[in-house]
Amino acid sequence: MSVVPFSVVSALSPVSPGTFTAQVSPDWTIGAKPNGGYLLTMLGRAAAAVGPHADVLAASAHYLHPPQPGEVTVEAEVLRAGRAAGQLRARMLQDGRLCVEALLTTGTLEAGGKPHWEGGLPERPDGAWDDAHRVPGTTPTGIPVALMEQVDLRIEPASWGFATGRPSGRGELRGWLALPGGEPFDPAALLFAVDAFPPATFDIEPTGWVPTLELTVYVRALPEPGPVRVLHQARLVDGGRVDEACFVWDAGGRLVAQSTQLAGIRLG
Amino acid sequence: MSVVPFSVVSALSPVSPGTFTAQVSPDWTIGAKPNGGYLLTMLGRAAAAVGPHADVLAASAHYLHPPQPGEVTVEAEVLRAGRAAGQLRARMLQDGRLCVEALLTTGTLEAGGKPHWEGGLPERPDGAWDDAHRVPGTTPTGIPVALMEQVDLRIEPASWGFATGRPSGRGELRGWLALPGGEPFDPAALLFAVDAFPPATFDIEPTGWVPTLELTVYVRALPEPGPVRVLHQARLVDGGRVDEACFVWDAGGRLVAQSTQLAGIRLG
Repeated sequence: MSVVPFSVVSALSPVSPGTFTAQVSPDWTIGAKPNGGYLLTMLGRAAAAVGPHADVLAASAHYLHPPQPGEVTVEAEVLRAGRAAGQLRARMLQDGRLCVEALLTTGTLEAGGKPHWEGGLPERPDGAWDDAHRVPGTTPTGIPVALMEQVDLRIEPASWGFATGRPSGRGELRGWLALPGGEPFDPAALLFAVDAFPPATFDIEPTGWVPTLELTVYVRALPEPGPVRVLHQARLVDGGRVDEACFVWDAGGRLVAQSTQLAGIRLG
Repeated sequence: MSVVPFSVVSALSPVSPGTFTAQVSPDWTIGAKPNGGYLLTMLGRAAAAVGPHADVLAASAHYLHPPQPGEVTVEAEVLRAGRAAGQLRARMLQDGRLCVEALLTTGTLEAGGKPHWEGGLPERPDGAWDDAHRVPGTTPTGIPVALMEQVDLRIEPASWGFATGRPSGRGELRGWLALPGGEPFDPAALLFAVDAFPPATFDIEPTGWVPTLELTVYVRALPEPGPVRVLHQARLVDGGRVDEACFVWDAGGRLVAQSTQLAGIRLG
């Protein structure tokens, strides 16, 4: 399988003001379904192209229908263009059917500087890249995850139990993520980073597909080049739904993105 | 000041299919700005009225312009009507100007039952109602918060330091919330509950208004009648923005709603 840069597989082609086409890659899938964060990166690129500011600060997506790999239409519309921030609605359609709709805020992230206060963050994963286990392109239950042939996603030994039938029960995965070829993350690529890890519920008990209903991402700083550290946590499984929180730190140790998602799950 | 039920001040009047009018109450404000969760409750009521299911499960709102107290138009449109869930877009406008836009998922919350797994939740506040301090209708810096004359919002002694000039530095407020007259919370009212508390940053250092940019709420179960327990936490202050997480438990001790928000802040 060939490895293609993320900037290429998430690129948009302009069609008319506010409208683009894009190609959803069959290589960025779990089973046959495109990764939801990957799709949101495309909406983020549309918002950054159409809005008054270059960086995505916040994105809230609701997933309606998973598109098939292949051509999609991406639209973005400015709802408010402010001096410091822009607010947009973006949509992905395939064959005229709405697949994803999102609201986004764009602005300008500063490089450098440091956080004013970070006392409410969870502990940053601190394991070494070389000690972590790379997630393979097939799940323990035999489902192909083509995505894992593209990215280099590594799980620290302490949360690797799910792969050997011994989940820790903490509902937590810690590790690393690198884009193909080590391409640096940009703000829109962080919308993918928060949704790249396997379901954190794997560290509780095995489940099938965990379809995302809603995904909200905040991008907090411009990432330094290099792999990012990721902490992915399940919080509550209730009524057939689970929420997961994800935290992403760049190579310099700064929290650059965080997310929460609500997904369906066949447990409970 | 008279106390009016929340169901009354958040009620909608139908105008045409998918369109409603509502009155934003001057009594549900901080300074002169309407509370963002209160506005989101109105969008939640519109989504529940227009969509195929009665309960709001998820709502993601982006705030563009705070409306003035007075008449607003609320619109809701079904994006997808599924058997188990509906997905909608809802908007609030005033004098033709877009104030809030949100995406919502509706479905059916079960009464009874219990969570399958809740190992990722923070510790539930456990203080007694009578020991907690009621937040008054004026901030320490003298800003009127009319909202606090309507709800009964109480903070446990351990996180009350902000009111006496001694914030703990943890960025965390714990306490209780009751609607006027002890009215039970319904799912749409929980969209308000997650945004009712003072900024969790008050427990770090004093700040002025903390305007919400984005608010995402998940409603996880039908609440039992009675006041709810609330945990409101700041996580990271960076680049003039703060994110806050909120968790709401009902009188039976079940996690019924949770949220994350990104807000502007004049710190850092």
